[in-house]
Amino acid sequence: MRKEIRVFAPATVSNVGCGFDVMGFALDTPGDEIVLRTTQRSGITITKITGDDGKLTLDPEKNTAGVPIIEMCREFGIKCGIEMEIHKKMPFGSGLGSSAASAVGATFALNHLLELNLSNKELLRFAQAGEMIASGSEHADNVAPCLYGGFILIRGYKPVDIVTLSSPENLFCTVIHPHIEISTKESRKLLPESIPVNDAIAQWGNCAALVAGLLTGDYELIGRSIEDHFAEPVRGKFIPQYAQIKEAALKSGALGCNISGSGPSVFALSSDLETAKKVGAAMKSQLDKIELASDIYISGINRKGPKIIELI
Amino acid sequence: MRKEIRVFAPATVSNVGCGFDVMGFALDTPGDEIVLRTTQRSGITITKITGDDGKLTLDPEKNTAGVPIIEMCREFGIKCGIEMEIHKKMPFGSGLGSSAASAVGATFALNHLLELNLSNKELLRFAQAGEMIASGSEHADNVAPCLYGGFILIRGYKPVDIVTLSSPENLFCTVIHPHIEISTKESRKLLPESIPVNDAIAQWGNCAALVAGLLTGDYELIGRSIEDHFAEPVRGKFIPQYAQIKEAALKSGALGCNISGSGPSVFALSSDLETAKKVGAAMKSQLDKIELASDIYISGINRKGPKIIELI
Repeated sequence: MRKEIRVFAPATVSNVGCGFDVMGFALDTPGDEIVLRTTQRSGITITKITGDDGKLTLDPEKNTAGVPIIEMCREFGIKCGIEMEIHKKMPFGSGLGSSAASAVGATFALNHLLELNLSNKELLRFAQAGEMIASGSEHADNVAPCLYGGFILIRGYKPVDIVTLSSPENLFCTVIHPHIEISTKESRKLLPESIPVNDAIAQWGNCAALVAGLLTGDYELIGRSIEDHFAEPVRGKFIPQYAQIKEAALKSGALGCNISGSGPSVFALSSDLETAKKVGAAMKSQLDKIELASDIYISGINRKGPKIIELI
Repeated sequence: MRKEIRVFAPATVSNVGCGFDVMGFALDTPGDEIVLRTTQRSGITITKITGDDGKLTLDPEKNTAGVPIIEMCREFGIKCGIEMEIHKKMPFGSGLGSSAASAVGATFALNHLLELNLSNKELLRFAQAGEMIASGSEHADNVAPCLYGGFILIRGYKPVDIVTLSSPENLFCTVIHPHIEISTKESRKLLPESIPVNDAIAQWGNCAALVAGLLTGDYELIGRSIEDHFAEPVRGKFIPQYAQIKEAALKSGALGCNISGSGPSVFALSSDLETAKKVGAAMKSQLDKIELASDIYISGINRKGPKIIELI
């Protein structure tokens, strides 16, 4: 039996403007690292968390990476002990699927460490249980792209119906993470409970068009479709300089720009790396103006999901 | 100059379950025929309407096929007289885009008769003006598929953004038209003005998935996506035996089944002609039970839009 595994699980951009709760895609960078070890002593222990400023709990039953491991061990009758280290290498409360990355990383790691040979579809269920702890809802628009890689559509939730979407090769993502924190759980509470019909029609027109743009490689259509009539009007207000960041991204040649997940991170898509970098500088300059610190990530689309860094 | 043209313009299925106001596709059969003639005497005259049981007006300013001709003549400074015959060869108030077929037929016919060389994008605007007369709204989910053929997505309306969608070759449509009439204008008034968020999310998940299914030729996904959380719960009640018709279609092997436009016609998609026929018989038997007369149409997907029957 293998003794130790270290995996990387990617950050993800959910919603993608129009696809609230149903769409997301994975990034090459940043992401979390999870280490799992089998031990003689039974039970599941989180031995170490780094990069969290002491904010995450070591109690596996309350930890987004712990819960999937507990559930997998219970369901598959796993008797050996499991030790876990969580290395947060991305900001949390940032709208980049930090909790999903930890949940998926743990799930993926256990699958390989114990050679369980579970499919992504089976793994998804456990990762969603972890996401539930963090966000209060079992939405899969971060965990699914984190696990499958690429662009993902969740057609429906009863049962979960995952559709993998191809996307054009030269698609690059710029993410700006302003150094403020927004809780997904709190953020969801601010959204309205119903949507005016005309806004809803615009939203599903864009959702459908974004899929068409991705599958046919129509960059302009992808750009036009990244519009949000539902969450952006509410969430945009909580992101300092949001309108200016978006305008700067589009002026610098981004195809489209919107809020990543529940924010405060903002993403933009571009059709070449040079533009993606230019867009990043333009976005950052808007936060520099108000002296708010921020990080910029420039990334291709991660088409593989999590990966094994080391397996001993 | 050409003197006379006769064209066919196809029936269309709009909404396609999930895509209220944004999706539609064209049928090979049924459809309307429009005849246009240039005359010495100036002005626009409707000389004949057949197949309408006397229900349509000969006044071109109030007729869905007359209005586009008036607007085109005005915009392009057309001085010659135009005589029009409208041959309704499909039921109206049926949810099969009858008004759109007449409006598109007239628009398409004038373009060819006078060799105006207008693009579909330009023609669409005039056809929409005709649709406005019939339905009270300029929605394009019948006129656009009627004009372009195939499956059409209208991403948005400001400005109209048409996306043509490829679809798998072996897709067949069964339509049942129960002999009752529903006014689109009245029917729209019954719909709620807002949508609960969870229903809206399900709707845009399905819309996006339907596009994915069409573009990748995934018949099962097409079937699963033909779901409606918005209009069907209201409109289904006005269609006799609707639940039974739908159940019978699905049991007979249809991929999906839902209301065509605002009804009362019901459409089903199948992946082969034999199944489409079987589905038709099963649907009809549900209306036979209550002794309500109905017509069945079995058709491929019309991928070309209107066509010229005769040009003299």
